[in-house]
Amino acid sequence: MHKRIITLGEIMLRLSTPGHERFVNTQSYEVNYGGAEANVAVSLAFWGQSAAHVTSFPDHDIGKAAVNTLRFSGVDTSFIRFNEGRMGVYFVENGAMQRSSKIIYDRFDSAFAQVNVTDFDWEKIFEGADWFHWTGITPAVSQAAADLCKAAVQAASRLGVKISADINYRRNLWQYGKGPMDIMPELIEPSHLIIAGLTDFENCMGITDNDYLQACEKAKSMCPSLKYVSTTHRDSISASENNLSGVLWNGESLLESKSYEMTHIVDRIGGGDAYMAGLIYGLLSSDDQNALDFAVAASVLKHSIPGDANFVSIDEVNQLVEGKNVGKLLR
Amino acid sequence: MHKRIITLGEIMLRLSTPGHERFVNTQSYEVNYGGAEANVAVSLAFWGQSAAHVTSFPDHDIGKAAVNTLRFSGVDTSFIRFNEGRMGVYFVENGAMQRSSKIIYDRFDSAFAQVNVTDFDWEKIFEGADWFHWTGITPAVSQAAADLCKAAVQAASRLGVKISADINYRRNLWQYGKGPMDIMPELIEPSHLIIAGLTDFENCMGITDNDYLQACEKAKSMCPSLKYVSTTHRDSISASENNLSGVLWNGESLLESKSYEMTHIVDRIGGGDAYMAGLIYGLLSSDDQNALDFAVAASVLKHSIPGDANFVSIDEVNQLVEGKNVGKLLR
Amino acid sequence: MHKRIITLGEIMLRLSTPGHERFVNTQSYEVNYGGAEANVAVSLAFWGQSAAHVTSFPDHDIGKAAVNTLRFSGVDTSFIRFNEGRMGVYFVENGAMQRSSKIIYDRFDSAFAQVNVTDFDWEKIFEGADWFHWTGITPAVSQAAADLCKAAVQAASRLGVKISADINYRRNLWQYGKGPMDIMPELIEPSHLIIAGLTDFENCMGITDNDYLQACEKAKSMCPSLKYVSTTHRDSISASENNLSGVLWNGESLLESKSYEMTHIVDRIGGGDAYMAGLIYGLLSSDDQNALDFAVAASVLKHSIPGDANFVSIDEVNQLVEGKNVGKLLR
Amino acid sequence: MHKRIITLGEIMLRLSTPGHERFVNTQSYEVNYGGAEANVAVSLAFWGQSAAHVTSFPDHDIGKAAVNTLRFSGVDTSFIRFNEGRMGVYFVENGAMQRSSKIIYDRFDSAFAQVNVTDFDWEKIFEGADWFHWTGITPAVSQAAADLCKAAVQAASRLGVKISADINYRRNLWQYGKGPMDIMPELIEPSHLIIAGLTDFENCMGITDNDYLQACEKAKSMCPSLKYVSTTHRDSISASENNLSGVLWNGESLLESKSYEMTHIVDRIGGGDAYMAGLIYGLLSSDDQNALDFAVAASVLKHSIPGDANFVSIDEVNQLVEGKNVGKLLR
Amino acid sequence: MHKRIITLGEIMLRLSTPGHERFVNTQSYEVNYGGAEANVAVSLAFWGQSAAHVTSFPDHDIGKAAVNTLRFSGVDTSFIRFNEGRMGVYFVENGAMQRSSKIIYDRFDSAFAQVNVTDFDWEKIFEGADWFHWTGITPAVSQAAADLCKAAVQAASRLGVKISADINYRRNLWQYGKGPMDIMPELIEPSHLIIAGLTDFENCMGITDNDYLQACEKAKSMCPSLKYVSTTHRDSISASENNLSGVLWNGESLLESKSYEMTHIVDRIGGGDAYMAGLIYGLLSSDDQNALDFAVAASVLKHSIPGDANFVSIDEVNQLVEGKNVGKLLR
Amino acid sequence: MHKRIITLGEIMLRLSTPGHERFVNTQSYEVNYGGAEANVAVSLAFWGQSAAHVTSFPDHDIGKAAVNTLRFSGVDTSFIRFNEGRMGVYFVENGAMQRSSKIIYDRFDSAFAQVNVTDFDWEKIFEGADWFHWTGITPAVSQAAADLCKAAVQAASRLGVKISADINYRRNLWQYGKGPMDIMPELIEPSHLIIAGLTDFENCMGITDNDYLQACEKAKSMCPSLKYVSTTHRDSISASENNLSGVLWNGESLLESKSYEMTHIVDRIGGGDAYMAGLIYGLLSSDDQNALDFAVAASVLKHSIPGDANFVSIDEVNQLVEGKNVGKLLR
Repeated sequence: MHKRIITLGEIMLRLSTPGHERFVNTQSYEVNYGGAEANVAVSLAFWGQSAAHVTSFPDHDIGKAAVNTLRFSGVDTSFIRFNEGRMGVYFVENGAMQRSSKIIYDRFDSAFAQVNVTDFDWEKIFEGADWFHWTGITPAVSQAAADLCKAAVQAASRLGVKISADINYRRNLWQYGKGPMDIMPELIEPSHLIIAGLTDFENCMGITDNDYLQACEKAKSMCPSLKYVSTTHRDSISASENNLSGVLWNGESLLESKSYEMTHIVDRIGGGDAYMAGLIYGLLSSDDQNALDFAVAASVLKHSIPGDANFVSIDEVNQLVEGKNVGKLLR
Repeated sequence: MHKRIITLGEIMLRLSTPGHERFVNTQSYEVNYGGAEANVAVSLAFWGQSAAHVTSFPDHDIGKAAVNTLRFSGVDTSFIRFNEGRMGVYFVENGAMQRSSKIIYDRFDSAFAQVNVTDFDWEKIFEGADWFHWTGITPAVSQAAADLCKAAVQAASRLGVKISADINYRRNLWQYGKGPMDIMPELIEPSHLIIAGLTDFENCMGITDNDYLQACEKAKSMCPSLKYVSTTHRDSISASENNLSGVLWNGESLLESKSYEMTHIVDRIGGGDAYMAGLIYGLLSSDDQNALDFAVAASVLKHSIPGDANFVSIDEVNQLVEGKNVGKLLR
Repeated sequence: MHKRIITLGEIMLRLSTPGHERFVNTQSYEVNYGGAEANVAVSLAFWGQSAAHVTSFPDHDIGKAAVNTLRFSGVDTSFIRFNEGRMGVYFVENGAMQRSSKIIYDRFDSAFAQVNVTDFDWEKIFEGADWFHWTGITPAVSQAAADLCKAAVQAASRLGVKISADINYRRNLWQYGKGPMDIMPELIEPSHLIIAGLTDFENCMGITDNDYLQACEKAKSMCPSLKYVSTTHRDSISASENNLSGVLWNGESLLESKSYEMTHIVDRIGGGDAYMAGLIYGLLSSDDQNALDFAVAASVLKHSIPGDANFVSIDEVNQLVEGKNVGKLLR
Repeated sequence: MHKRIITLGEIMLRLSTPGHERFVNTQSYEVNYGGAEANVAVSLAFWGQSAAHVTSFPDHDIGKAAVNTLRFSGVDTSFIRFNEGRMGVYFVENGAMQRSSKIIYDRFDSAFAQVNVTDFDWEKIFEGADWFHWTGITPAVSQAAADLCKAAVQAASRLGVKISADINYRRNLWQYGKGPMDIMPELIEPSHLIIAGLTDFENCMGITDNDYLQACEKAKSMCPSLKYVSTTHRDSISASENNLSGVLWNGESLLESKSYEMTHIVDRIGGGDAYMAGLIYGLLSSDDQNALDFAVAASVLKHSIPGDANFVSIDEVNQLVEGKNVGKLLR
Repeated sequence: MHKRIITLGEIMLRLSTPGHERFVNTQSYEVNYGGAEANVAVSLAFWGQSAAHVTSFPDHDIGKAAVNTLRFSGVDTSFIRFNEGRMGVYFVENGAMQRSSKIIYDRFDSAFAQVNVTDFDWEKIFEGADWFHWTGITPAVSQAAADLCKAAVQAASRLGVKISADINYRRNLWQYGKGPMDIMPELIEPSHLIIAGLTDFENCMGITDNDYLQACEKAKSMCPSLKYVSTTHRDSISASENNLSGVLWNGESLLESKSYEMTHIVDRIGGGDAYMAGLIYGLLSSDDQNALDFAVAASVLKHSIPGDANFVSIDEVNQLVEGKNVGKLLR
Repeated sequence: MHKRIITLGEIMLRLSTPGHERFVNTQSYEVNYGGAEANVAVSLAFWGQSAAHVTSFPDHDIGKAAVNTLRFSGVDTSFIRFNEGRMGVYFVENGAMQRSSKIIYDRFDSAFAQVNVTDFDWEKIFEGADWFHWTGITPAVSQAAADLCKAAVQAASRLGVKISADINYRRNLWQYGKGPMDIMPELIEPSHLIIAGLTDFENCMGITDNDYLQACEKAKSMCPSLKYVSTTHRDSISASENNLSGVLWNGESLLESKSYEMTHIVDRIGGGDAYMAGLIYGLLSSDDQNALDFAVAASVLKHSIPGDANFVSIDEVNQLVEGKNVGKLLR
């Protein structure tokens, strides 16, 4: 399979304390570059697909470093633009046992928040594209980002590109004067697949059902192209140990994955994006249950990898789905 | 709440092998400065209290580094003095699974062991103080340290400052010609709170009861001011996994905390001191059961933090007590 | 000598690439906290003076880390406040040979730029103070910062506290609608000592003389309390090798220091602040020539120390002035 | 006890990614030198025995580093020779949770594969020797290595030195034109102890029984000197968590050890070699059941130590066997 | 300017000891991927040109890491193939003062040495190409590599692509039965630019003149398309300090650059490749003297950057040529 | 040449701050084990000689680590004993430019200071020995160490083993009640070679001549076996740059070496010991001038190596003597 997937969204400089050091006395930060949508592109490119990420950066060496890092993973960066503004940063402190992990975001006034909507020619970007992916973070960042997202969604819809939306409601964003209900319903409407939990449904679509199946059906009634709704269930026993499973509603039934015990988590950031990438890959290449199983297994493996990017191969994911070579020493 | 707490005791240079490296082939040591009593001061200062630590150091850059490190945590270091002698050192090797953690002490002839008792004006030190904390390590170090401890305890008692004593009997100390029974009973006598297990009771107070409640009552009969006795229970499944709970006898009953499973221990050193600090904080600010619960939760969180110092906030401790946000990713 | 010095200004998180790594592919950043004025307070506290720094931070763990780091160096942090806004950041890339060192500033909208002027009671802050130090960076940051600086300067002047101003004109700042000539002359007017080069004189005071002595005299005519003007001369042979000297005009003549060859520079950031601290220390404790010599030697030694803070002792500076023990192995 | 043990086999440069980094984006490799047989010698030397390792290296600084590293552990390196060829390398990626650990071998054309058989005087090497240990890796490497192994086995047999063989069939080796059944039976024949699982029995001895006891008896019928057969059972719950036990057939019965839960594995490479060393040590110094228990406990502790070498003391192993001080903090 | 440059050659895993550690006791290696020709592509891609590198790797994670690292720098990797064979490795020890730097090569039997000549469609590779660059290392590696090089050179010549050849004679290579004089003259013949010193001329072209100008003219007489000959002069005062200059013969005269004192060398590996890239860039975009000056300045800056890749911008190179901002602190 | 050299003296744990970090805020220490005499043994063993070091350590893992580290370098450790007492420690801070390097010693009450003189059978130790080396540090440590040194010197003298003494007067030692003039003359008397500067002559032998030649002759008059006197001249331009040369008096004339400019010093500790080892090696294998030249060159190279041990080969030293390959890149 070789598909073309376009993703859109902000990439930030991720600064993580080493090991289990705390912000308050750390002596260094490890460098990564990540963003919910770019993480999806990275997974798909790593799996041999043609993935392009659309974003903008400040025009300095750290912005260039972010571009280079995407290229490292094989992502097509030719649509990335540079404009005024700073580099968004998020600081990560990795918890342990009962101590939670923490993120301090420092992303306001970033280059992406000030993106020039006219810098992007969506007709050209979507040439040959099979899929477009965006998340609810983008319209929450700024009016410019929301406008860019809208232009992208409309173009994708017009050009017949399948759209996935990870609704991903974040309370701390949406500070530029608009709320999610002002913007999200229109953006979500042409989706083929949405990732949403009950809170996301409520905040971004006004769907207040407590029953997931009914919420999915209500979403379908609002989005005529909608084929799939999905979400993950995470049971946090501690910062070091979580259980993870996923569900996929395909218009007919609610498929469920097995639940994985993740007993020695290395880095959970990007776990949801790994799931998203797995679902896109699976739905493009296989049947619904396989897609769901692939997505959950991809996400589980992500928790064993430092950094946002899910550097695991298709083979590794499939072997986990099949229960082969799990946790062995492969020579 | 804003209270003034005075702590007394030696601070050593802690040199820890990185990760799970062994002494025998480690290539580097990580630097911390710690001591049972100073660790208590650090926690209390970190929680916004006015905590001063009393000790002495050699007058060189490493002694100064220790002072600076205390200041980093907000501890008042204005009563610290410099005198002849070396810097006490302890080397730490962090175990894993069935392999035990190890400490090699190298503390004899330290500046603190040779402390000048007359360098400290206890009337001035205890000005405005609400609480004084010492441990059984200090009188075990040298005659000078025992004399200093005695002067402090007597002054605190005379000035109406509440006293806590972590009896903490250590077989490897007491090498200067005195035994614990020569010295400890008199020092313990004016205590408001003591931390003691059955072994400590036997070695330092001559109380040989096997029933903890009876031992507490016997201690009370020897120490007229005694209001509280407490200890922790640690179940060591492996170096990586312990269960922890605590009990607090308040003269009426033996309160018990819940037991926490600590499944991925990062650093257990200072866990007892975190408990001690939690108990002091709790007893100064809340009721007995809350104090105990706060102390145990503070100690649990310490096990997730590298180094002796328990850099966790009051909020984090309270959330653990309430079971909120445990092991989550806080954005 | 034991004097009280107050400094005012923003402190930023400094993130430096290790060794000679470049921004574009660095994998980690080393953490420091620095600011031109706080660096002066750190030096003076390290030399046993009572130094308090006035600033504001965001109320999160990284803001607290900055406070703690100041305390580490012995600086009085009791006047620091927390308010809305982000942590200013500067990224540092250490050059080598012909390759320049680079700083990327990311400081807009910081907590300090949004400082609440009414959070600071200058009467109280200047209680017992001998000296107040500010720089031209502060009024360049934002209107709020300029207002705060003005309040401080006026109070110091009113209360008879000697004032030093490092004019330090930075072209990239001054982006909030005011220019230096709108604000600086009034702020500089009550100074006792100013640090200024010819460019600073021109941009901040409108003095366009090319002769330094004449510029000093013109400055004196504008600032009735002015006793001293000083600046350093840096000859950059390469990023690794500079020559450094200083001059001090004391109203009578232009004193000159010897010139030092700094052949293996470790970290030049903070070199000017080390000079400033040396000058304040010297002028408070010795005669003019000695003060100048002390300041230059302090600055030279700073270039051998990683980080912004100049952790060298008075003895080390004096020995360099006297040419004793230079570059030896001291056992 | 002080015995003389000779081991023979290739030592490679081990390059491990730090922490849980993946090959694909690691920035550094940690350096170790290891080999199945040398790891046995290291354990035995660390336990105070006289252990000599026989091998050959390329004559450059990295070959010398390997020799030095063996000396560090107290292994006699006086029989090591240098010849043409490269240094074998193996790259190690440490898994976590469900993600497997991986090894990439790069060992072809090594100096050891091109070893000069005539460089080794086995009469001299076995002077005073009590035991000789080899593994099935050596004859699988090259014809020269197989010839060297045969010369050693024949000399040991002739000189009455007890022989242990860890059959250790590796599918990826045996690429020089011979198969295991061409070579192994003759080499195994004079063994006193063999380590073999059912797969090894089948591939190297043609024994196809599925019942371990019967396989052992069949092996005995083929090897007249055979006294012991042993193997470990490893249950891989994940890369982080395994259960481990061992069995020892002594010609009469199949002894079993207890099973250990290894819940936080640090480094499993060398675990089998630690078992082997423990068995040799135990059989030379104690009874059969004790030997087996010692071997399994030694292997368990190895999993807590970074690197190939099992730097644990006899006391530590014995305490684990006895269930004393397990996972404690030893002061 | 936007040109298309194709480079061909092996890329190896570079393992460097940290700081000034020696091979014999280093504990870790830093990871880079480099090769003389790929380093040229990296520079040109970093300068905004379209550069594609042609090579082959083993089909495992470390081979993929090398591909990714090229992509990081913006090099087009779409013509890279995977085949049997190992990853070539070179170990680097960075000297200091009088102590030389050392490289241990371990490159025999690499995937590139076993490259499949038919895997590469040179018509397609050279589509739109302006320049092709190869070095004398490639035909020295193996017959297959020599054949591949010949196919490339012939195609480039046929398709009118300008060819540069860095003759780069290495005595330790050429071990597959051919000598340089068997192969190089034919390969060099269609060159537009060659990099050669007198030794290279002698070994690879049989030109034995001691006068560089005469050697250039003799080369011209053998290579009808030859327009340029160039080389650098390096004066090694110590491992830490070199002087560097270059000369460029353009058929008319021998242009000379200024000589740079490189007083604190960080990493000299790749210095020649940086020069090569600078020359290609310069000759494609400017006049001959400017091209030479640009090349030397690019090479000088490379010596300040860790790793093979010359991550410096066109602006930085031009500023060094012009003597602007040399070794300053750029804010 | 293959000679047997015995060295005697204390080995300490060396803890060095990384890079140019200062004691006062370092976060880690790098681990080495060194001692003036053991450093000599390490050099000689590294050069293929049979070198045994005699010392004692505390019987714990850090003592064992020191033994292992000696073995790494090939030193015979079979005469090392364990006794009561602590591990001596020295903390090292590496200066830069005008900032001096600093050592904090923490060696009192070490195991070596409490060494049991009867643990050492000098007849056995000197079996087959050609040379014995000691320094003035040992008799300065404690009465027991002085006694041990005396026993060794007397035995060596009696058994006809050549003796070298590096007088090495250290003011901070000699704290056990004896002064150098009480002890040193008798110990020095049977020397074949002494290393001494004018200060050493005065303090340890009572020779107050300011003329080195005359001092040598006076020493000869006091020591009938004396053949050689030597010392180095170090000109400290800065901590980063020294000039080094040596002189050797052979009873006839004062030979001089060339002077080396060491412009980028990595680690100067052990430089004198490298010289000592070079002199012993040279005098055992060559003529006097060659020996001196070899010694100085060995010492120069040591300054480029991190740690106490001089891991340079005989070839590297000889090439420096001959001015070959100095500071090149050796492939």
